[in-house]
Amino acid sequence: MTAPEWIAVDWGTSHVRVWAMNGATILARRDSDQGMGRLHASEFEAALLTLLGDWLDTAPVPLPVVICGMAGARQGWHEAPYIPVPCEVPVHGVAVPTKDARLNVRILPGLSQAKPADVMRGEETQIGGFLASQADFDGVLCLPGTHTKWAHISAREVVSFRTFMTGEMFALLSQQSVLRFSTADGWDKAAFLDGVADGMGRPAGFAAELFSLRARDLLEDPPKGHARARLSGLLIGLELAGSRPYWLGQDVVVLSDDSLGQAYVAALDAQGAVVRSAATEGVTLAGLVTAFKAG
Amino acid sequence: MTAPEWIAVDWGTSHVRVWAMNGATILARRDSDQGMGRLHASEFEAALLTLLGDWLDTAPVPLPVVICGMAGARQGWHEAPYIPVPCEVPVHGVAVPTKDARLNVRILPGLSQAKPADVMRGEETQIGGFLASQADFDGVLCLPGTHTKWAHISAREVVSFRTFMTGEMFALLSQQSVLRFSTADGWDKAAFLDGVADGMGRPAGFAAELFSLRARDLLEDPPKGHARARLSGLLIGLELAGSRPYWLGQDVVVLSDDSLGQAYVAALDAQGAVVRSAATEGVTLAGLVTAFKAG
Repeated sequence: MTAPEWIAVDWGTSHVRVWAMNGATILARRDSDQGMGRLHASEFEAALLTLLGDWLDTAPVPLPVVICGMAGARQGWHEAPYIPVPCEVPVHGVAVPTKDARLNVRILPGLSQAKPADVMRGEETQIGGFLASQADFDGVLCLPGTHTKWAHISAREVVSFRTFMTGEMFALLSQQSVLRFSTADGWDKAAFLDGVADGMGRPAGFAAELFSLRARDLLEDPPKGHARARLSGLLIGLELAGSRPYWLGQDVVVLSDDSLGQAYVAALDAQGAVVRSAATEGVTLAGLVTAFKAG
Repeated sequence: MTAPEWIAVDWGTSHVRVWAMNGATILARRDSDQGMGRLHASEFEAALLTLLGDWLDTAPVPLPVVICGMAGARQGWHEAPYIPVPCEVPVHGVAVPTKDARLNVRILPGLSQAKPADVMRGEETQIGGFLASQADFDGVLCLPGTHTKWAHISAREVVSFRTFMTGEMFALLSQQSVLRFSTADGWDKAAFLDGVADGMGRPAGFAAELFSLRARDLLEDPPKGHARARLSGLLIGLELAGSRPYWLGQDVVVLSDDSLGQAYVAALDAQGAVVRSAATEGVTLAGLVTAFKAG
């Protein structure tokens, strides 16, 4: 392998991905489950060295390492304090002291918002990666996930953003609540869209509609996949009710092309929103490349 | 001990309680964690015999056993099919075949509602116990719990009811979601009532308000107990928004006097509802006594 010029790292709560880079070119990639949630502050450096392994043999000294994500949280490796919005996506990382002199580590900060109180770590780098190829974008980015983010972008700045715990609630309710008996698998798109309409149109009914999923399963024997899709629809519908100021009348890009991203596009489309999706593959790395080049 | 005349049983998902009874008098009480969730249909009889133990030595043969709760579910001991509302609280149980001829087991049915789809098992017996001492009650009963029930009672009948998964959502969000880092303990009543007002007044904002609990904890270092109480308030407020047709302008009795019941009373009181609480101690047993006497 060509000697790496620098290392890009996406250090999340449950996973870490590292890329050996030459400029914007990927030389090699490794990952592990040594996410922030598993490590004490003192253990990150060793975890990184293990992942780098033989890449260090040919690398320059010191080797630049640019990290985004939860490694910069207060309970992570080294705190990279939030930058308050409105602001451009941060490209200058916080220097992290290391015992191994071969490393030159920087962690990119996340973003914060005072009112309503909100934070992000990692998604700002995805936003930076998207803007790297669409610098003139003026509109709203939706980043579906465990904690879905909506961000209003204008003149290269993140103007405001809002986080919805929709993905985490879906996981908890479908896997650990009484609904798990009714939402095991399957997908019924009509039931999903009905759920979106009901969750958005009658958000007050949400907590009762949840239990009705179970009751209907006991009383009516609905088609397989109905309850799971309706649960997802109710949750995304409730989110669309709360995020309406973000998507109504805006140019919306859903930054995901997997099944969750497709669900958001379908839900927004059904509300008459102007929406398109963009592939996320490579967007985090593009953000890290931008930060590396900014030096 | 006096020989028991009959046995009362409250067989829930996670626990079972049995009482040796003489008429309406309690002779002895036992319980175990052999709830419905742990047992196959074939294992209930042995679990019951173990709990009865030496009570059987002096009991009449056959010994009447009256059961309420999840033992009557399809995946329980023996299905006691739901009775559709509107109806009086059922007092006639479904006979359960047993191998041991010393037992005469009956399981009380739960209630169902077609639209909106809903079910209850166990709470109907609490309602029956409440009505045993307040036969003329005309109003709304709120039964707080994992799955809080609201029931409209008129002329001794359950007219309609609705279930909200508020308690289960609170448990999942406060113990298993990212909010667990912010909602470990403590209680701030003002934060609870603010949460109720926000959850009820702006139900669409619910999913974003959840994440703000975490963000505020990271950004503002709020007083201890603030986030936990506000989470409970947001959930109960969302429930009050959805259950408004039940409590608005009605005579409401919260059938619980523990801390959860007190929270519901405080939340309803803050909305100007006419509300009082009643002790639940003995109310399930009173319902079982009513069923036993109805024979």
